[in-house]
Amino acid sequence: MLQRALNQIRFCQHISRSCILSQRLMASSSGSEKFGLPKRYQEATESVWVEYVALALKYKPLNLGQGFPDYPPPSYVTKALSDVANGDHLLNQYTRGFGHPRLVQALSKAYSQWIGRQIDPNNEILVTVGAYQSLYNAIYGHIDHGDEAIIIEPFYDCYYDMIKSAGGVVRAIPLKPTKSGIISSADWKLDPIEFEKLFNNKTKMLILNTPHNPLGKVFNLDELTMIADLCKKWNVLVIADEVYEHMVFEPNQHIRICTLPDMWERTLTIGSAGKTFSATGWKLGWTYGPNNLIRNMQLVHQNSVYTCATPLQEAAAIGFEYELSRFNESDSFFKSLAVELKDKRDFMATFLTQTGYQPVIPEAGYFMIADWSHLKDKVDLSSETDEYKDYRFTKYMTKNVSLQGIPPSAFYTKANKHLGENFVRYCYIKKDETLQKAADILNKWYNN
Amino acid sequence: MLQRALNQIRFCQHISRSCILSQRLMASSSGSEKFGLPKRYQEATESVWVEYVALALKYKPLNLGQGFPDYPPPSYVTKALSDVANGDHLLNQYTRGFGHPRLVQALSKAYSQWIGRQIDPNNEILVTVGAYQSLYNAIYGHIDHGDEAIIIEPFYDCYYDMIKSAGGVVRAIPLKPTKSGIISSADWKLDPIEFEKLFNNKTKMLILNTPHNPLGKVFNLDELTMIADLCKKWNVLVIADEVYEHMVFEPNQHIRICTLPDMWERTLTIGSAGKTFSATGWKLGWTYGPNNLIRNMQLVHQNSVYTCATPLQEAAAIGFEYELSRFNESDSFFKSLAVELKDKRDFMATFLTQTGYQPVIPEAGYFMIADWSHLKDKVDLSSETDEYKDYRFTKYMTKNVSLQGIPPSAFYTKANKHLGENFVRYCYIKKDETLQKAADILNKWYNN
Repeated sequence: MLQRALNQIRFCQHISRSCILSQRLMASSSGSEKFGLPKRYQEATESVWVEYVALALKYKPLNLGQGFPDYPPPSYVTKALSDVANGDHLLNQYTRGFGHPRLVQALSKAYSQWIGRQIDPNNEILVTVGAYQSLYNAIYGHIDHGDEAIIIEPFYDCYYDMIKSAGGVVRAIPLKPTKSGIISSADWKLDPIEFEKLFNNKTKMLILNTPHNPLGKVFNLDELTMIADLCKKWNVLVIADEVYEHMVFEPNQHIRICTLPDMWERTLTIGSAGKTFSATGWKLGWTYGPNNLIRNMQLVHQNSVYTCATPLQEAAAIGFEYELSRFNESDSFFKSLAVELKDKRDFMATFLTQTGYQPVIPEAGYFMIADWSHLKDKVDLSSETDEYKDYRFTKYMTKNVSLQGIPPSAFYTKANKHLGENFVRYCYIKKDETLQKAADILNKWYNN
Repeated sequence: MLQRALNQIRFCQHISRSCILSQRLMASSSGSEKFGLPKRYQEATESVWVEYVALALKYKPLNLGQGFPDYPPPSYVTKALSDVANGDHLLNQYTRGFGHPRLVQALSKAYSQWIGRQIDPNNEILVTVGAYQSLYNAIYGHIDHGDEAIIIEPFYDCYYDMIKSAGGVVRAIPLKPTKSGIISSADWKLDPIEFEKLFNNKTKMLILNTPHNPLGKVFNLDELTMIADLCKKWNVLVIADEVYEHMVFEPNQHIRICTLPDMWERTLTIGSAGKTFSATGWKLGWTYGPNNLIRNMQLVHQNSVYTCATPLQEAAAIGFEYELSRFNESDSFFKSLAVELKDKRDFMATFLTQTGYQPVIPEAGYFMIADWSHLKDKVDLSSETDEYKDYRFTKYMTKNVSLQGIPPSAFYTKANKHLGENFVRYCYIKKDETLQKAADILNKWYNN
């Protein structure tokens, strides 16, 4: 009986998010279901990643879904890890909980240069299990029951669940295209009037993602100043998710909001070794900011993982030291990566345009969203049952055209999911040969 | 003004836990202190590890405090990591969120043998950032506001803060020595009458640590049966922290509580690559148990770190596969580690006894607690200001004798801290030469 109920729940979870509520109701009505989820997770959404990774495993499409390179990280980084593994055996044991000394030193040196302010390696930096855990520590370290957090749509999906499960209230506002046709990510903008209305005395936090995923938008100085002024006016903490900081295409410039006047004291800025060194599987990230804000994150860190892997931290430190030694030279990985990605972006934008999409040309990063609505007569979405069109489109394309993207409505709150429905997100940090294959697949399909 | 207030807070935090409350009061009374800690962390304790790691850095004693080996992990494990770093580049990218396929396969194979039940690698195992994050996921995935959790004193200190910050109520009961003099960890027992009284309708969880840190106690079948019967009677979930499972000294036997009748369905069992392969810095752990309980943990995992480092998971999988291929042979690392540790235990017990301590001889693990109260006339504790005697003793010994241990009162709730005050915890997974140095230090001091 219980087993049958559990099986139903499992099936139900695959159907839609609304069923999670039914699961909760079933749980509370059954004495034997004492071991259900705590209330804080009752609104948790099914992860688009879990679902689409499973989809890729099943149908084996050419996968432009999840964001990671299908080619090696720079060889000095993997060599560093290999050397560390064979080197001083103490690097296989626990290191300092809030960040391995060599890594926080390297981070302090790098970011102190980049933000023009001396960062204290021991008190103003926290090393975490990827930028993901930095977000978690920042949100759990500050959001209390009833606190409001502003997020900008489309948003990296974990922001929402983290704020909700911490007891916070999500206030979301979409970036909207201000032109039609094939446009730049710069043409997606916030409505300043609507934006200002979100702020009130309960506003504790704003999460700003620049360069932005999935748009590739680089917030410019005017936009950042508008955001900063409101955050100062309402005494709001900014979580600056800047993991794509080294992938900004000329002539755009990445501006760190913590460098704007009087913003350091209210900003926690998040970076990522996985993004920086094209090694997402290392799961190493960091946050820098003033000590009083970092301290709150340390407590969450100490309560949940305590410390990060030593060998990976040592290897990342070696990578940083090397890059810092050649930072302004043309062979700097950070420079060459952006140049390389810009070519890949242009290649993808071209083949998407040629096959009926209207891409939004990103100013940075390695994702591109594209409007597929002009292709609606080429796809039969009636075979798919998802609520949102982009889910149906991406599933159809995976199953029938063998090309996988991610549905952007996953990056919107329920009220605004329709804004993402005409789009698909593709990742272009892939070998030229992989991108050529994607072009071939789409060309063949489109011209068939 | 604000800076002065913040400095006071910082100072206050170093003095005692009760001051945390003053910090909160200050925070709420000051408009500019909007960015204080959420309520769930208000009772968080200062970590004994943060304090004692800083102490070790300052005084540079011979450090028998934190639990990690000062000699290399088995060479096939570090070689595996080195090979992985230089090998298939995709092993530097994201892997499956709930556990790298090769690792969950290896874990399933190992534990299925050891518990005599087929474990589904994809649905009954979760890989985490150390056993520490397994504990976090298990506690956050099940403890809701007002749920009661039973823990056994002395306990690994994070249990307490994790339960409290999840909104739970801690119900603690001490193991107590049933004999005096130099005794075995087996002589520390639960009072079954007192234990039974802890259970009620609100009891959601019991955390069982066997082999036990810091005692080294291996719970025997009678004890486990008594615990299991109460958990079944009251429908309570057991979190079995078994990270020292491969360090049990003959003739003692590690019994996994999940193998007792009708216990699988209510037990989450936690293991650790750091402990298993003497590589604590890898921060890789896992939990196995029935799918409905693992699923709740997955949600916390997905919400906080999403996935663990790929290269470390691949290397740990290789290590496991190798050990499984020789599991019943005498050169198995798991067998040789326990034999090696038993010799180190005996050496430490001898030199502690010779220098006036009364050690509790552990049946497993790599920690030993020892009663130092007969040495009270050899130490001048008046120079130390801590509330608890064992803090004063361990700090005195660090500063004046240059040998560091950990104060066990850190592993008790406030009401029972006095039970730990006469003890110190030392770690003996150290080179023979390090242990000899410790013996020399104590002999010189004792006979002076």
